[in-house]
Amino acid sequence: MLFQVEMTVKLPLSMPAEKAYSQELQRSGKWHHLWRVADSYSNVGIFDVKDNAELQELVSNLPFFPYMETSVKPLCSNSSSIREDDS
Amino acid sequence: MLFQVEMTVKLPLSMPAEKAYSQELQRSGKWHHLWRVADSYSNVGIFDVKDNAELQELVSNLPFFPYMETSVKPLCSNSSSIREDDS
Amino acid sequence: MLFQVEMTVKLPLSMPAEKAYSQELQRSGKWHHLWRVADSYSNVGIFDVKDNAELQELVSNLPFFPYMETSVKPLCSNSSSIREDDS
Amino acid sequence: MLFQVEMTVKLPLSMPAEKAYSQELQRSGKWHHLWRVADSYSNVGIFDVKDNAELQELVSNLPFFPYMETSVKPLCSNSSSIREDDS
Amino acid sequence: MLFQVEMTVKLPLSMPAEKAYSQELQRSGKWHHLWRVADSYSNVGIFDVKDNAELQELVSNLPFFPYMETSVKPLCSNSSSIREDDS
Amino acid sequence: MLFQVEMTVKLPLSMPAEKAYSQELQRSGKWHHLWRVADSYSNVGIFDVKDNAELQELVSNLPFFPYMETSVKPLCSNSSSIREDDS
Amino acid sequence: MLFQVEMTVKLPLSMPAEKAYSQELQRSGKWHHLWRVADSYSNVGIFDVKDNAELQELVSNLPFFPYMETSVKPLCSNSSSIREDDS
Amino acid sequence: MLFQVEMTVKLPLSMPAEKAYSQELQRSGKWHHLWRVADSYSNVGIFDVKDNAELQELVSNLPFFPYMETSVKPLCSNSSSIREDDS
Amino acid sequence: MLFQVEMTVKLPLSMPAEKAYSQELQRSGKWHHLWRVADSYSNVGIFDVKDNAELQELVSNLPFFPYMETSVKPLCSNSSSIREDDS
Amino acid sequence: MLFQVEMTVKLPLSMPAEKAYSQELQRSGKWHHLWRVADSYSNVGIFDVKDNAELQELVSNLPFFPYMETSVKPLCSNSSSIREDDS
Repeated sequence: MLFQVEMTVKLPLSMPAEKAYSQELQRSGKWHHLWRVADSYSNVGIFDVKDNAELQELVSNLPFFPYMETSVKPLCSNSSSIREDDS
Repeated sequence: MLFQVEMTVKLPLSMPAEKAYSQELQRSGKWHHLWRVADSYSNVGIFDVKDNAELQELVSNLPFFPYMETSVKPLCSNSSSIREDDS
Repeated sequence: MLFQVEMTVKLPLSMPAEKAYSQELQRSGKWHHLWRVADSYSNVGIFDVKDNAELQELVSNLPFFPYMETSVKPLCSNSSSIREDDS
Repeated sequence: MLFQVEMTVKLPLSMPAEKAYSQELQRSGKWHHLWRVADSYSNVGIFDVKDNAELQELVSNLPFFPYMETSVKPLCSNSSSIREDDS
Repeated sequence: MLFQVEMTVKLPLSMPAEKAYSQELQRSGKWHHLWRVADSYSNVGIFDVKDNAELQELVSNLPFFPYMETSVKPLCSNSSSIREDDS
Repeated sequence: MLFQVEMTVKLPLSMPAEKAYSQELQRSGKWHHLWRVADSYSNVGIFDVKDNAELQELVSNLPFFPYMETSVKPLCSNSSSIREDDS
Repeated sequence: MLFQVEMTVKLPLSMPAEKAYSQELQRSGKWHHLWRVADSYSNVGIFDVKDNAELQELVSNLPFFPYMETSVKPLCSNSSSIREDDS
Repeated sequence: MLFQVEMTVKLPLSMPAEKAYSQELQRSGKWHHLWRVADSYSNVGIFDVKDNAELQELVSNLPFFPYMETSVKPLCSNSSSIREDDS
Repeated sequence: MLFQVEMTVKLPLSMPAEKAYSQELQRSGKWHHLWRVADSYSNVGIFDVKDNAELQELVSNLPFFPYMETSVKPLCSNSSSIREDDS
Repeated sequence: MLFQVEMTVKLPLSMPAEKAYSQELQRSGKWHHLWRVADSYSNVGIFDVKDNAELQELVSNLPFFPYMETSVKPLCSNSSSIREDDS
């Protein structure tokens, strides 16, 4: 189940701890995409989790979470999408 | 080059004309992802275009464009992303 | 999995069709609570659904959906809550 | 009488003092529900109090109150709700 | 129990039906004060009701309610107020 | 002449200095009402002053003024009010 | 006593009725200044009135009032101003 | 050419340096009016300058400029104004 | 003197009348730049005018002005710019 | 490809490091225009870059970037513009 999470943090995001944690989640398939919003401190992530609780757990364990502003949107597949699984 | 475009339109999005147009762009690789924001009239699209002009052209030719509220964010790859091409 | 959905519609909400549809969902356990925000046209609903797609389906099939402004918040259990299942 | 109170605090909410205070109110029936908004520092509480003064007293005595942003909505029963007491 | 309700309606508020209804509530003690916000279409009312449900009932029965934007604040006595009953 | 002033201050309002100052104004008839907005740090005051300058003077001399966010609305009597003087 | 009133109306403001009414008030000294905000439909007026009630009366009798968005700020003299009467 | 500039600063504005600087500009005719917004930390100034650059220079040299929030509106004469020069 | 004006209109901007009018101003040097904000109905224009009154005149005579939302920012040269005239 | 970037920083922008960096980009053709928004701490820049990634790189390497609020708009040529390349 997909969630779009925009994370804004006024610190250089790609610190070792943050990078390692997020790459591990990406490899596990929980974190499908991670883009930087050009010219800002924001990043857009597409998470694929079992339920809300897992989203809460994964995001709140980001090392930078205490310094982040986050906004979340629950996504679901669109009947016009040509992707089967919409990963 | 990726852009995230959120499109809100108070009409059932998946009308034939709209669906055909968007699926053609998806097959062409210009429109990577199309999700519905659950419980709302908004959709999130990830476009992959040559430049701003192409983005303007593709989105403004959506049949529903005159009835849409859109907000665009230019994306770029994030140093923590494990995806090479970040499609 | 719980979602809080605030639904604002400038029409008398409890029209027969709307009432029947929402009460059926309540009996089925999908819609736990439905309160009116005093002195306004807003209602707060607590939904218990399988995933985002089901939320999208249930809410967008409300007869008044085309006339509604909605805002959704994904909820999860709080470690301080004394309720086991947090219904 | 029900109030929905959203409480946002940039500190780990479930500190012992906070947890004990809120669980005591929940057992007393004053605080019906306590959910976490997934992926954020916000919590949603449903309070059942005698009047506004009691709401003011209960919430302002939360140990974290000085660090909280709160927004309150007075709720009342909805004619479409199937719950008698709407707890 | 007091509520401050700001009511904005783009119609001349003091139409006979509206005036009669509001004056009856004022005489009954349910509606303590009614002021006009100078130079605007807004009015501020101080209601004294039993509970949220009564507030909902009194305000939603205003003839102009369907055309009104309302915002409500639950009030309670302030320890610095010299008024006993704070009417 | 009446003004509604909402005063928000993140400090316990009823400190001796603040209380004494506000009660003196209340006794003098300059400050008709003082309510607390339940569950928040805001207070609503109804001032009765000669002119804007007096409002500026009375409010800016509140001990907590430097820490306050204020918003002011000029009020005037409403033709539907049953109160003569609308105190 | 001075009030700054910004009036925005999507109609050509200087229609005969509007012009006559406003110029009469200007000659009477009630309306000190009337400027156009360049490149918009907004106008800024500085009114000099006895009290809030007079402000309400003068502005609400503008022929275009029903089509106007207004925002009002009560002004008072500034200790740094070199103007005695601050007209 | 007139500009309306609203300046908000959480410090007592009329400190000697600030007062002297602003009064000098007022005497020079560059700064026509300076009012206090009652009950707040905001002031409204009407500047008469040659061009944008001069506005930038005059305002940014206010001693308190680094602590100020400013919002500027370019004004021009209104065809309904009875003032020739609209000072 | 430069002004940045953002013009949003929900109509195809480049209608003959609009195009002719704006191109005439561009040739006259009054309108330096005109860009489209990609994927939206907004355009950004950089105007070079004598004073505010001329800005008001030029923009309010755009055929689509009655249907436009505009926001204006007065620009002035930046000490870091390498352009002499900053056209 | 053009981007309009508004950069607001509460520090004197034209510090040597910042000035040198921005002038080098201007000479290279990457940064077409740099204006100051009169009477504020904001600057408007028009960048001409290969893609979003280059925008991100150029702007985030501004010495003051950590202290900046930025908002970016992707621009594209307007069919009414008389400029061929729209630099």
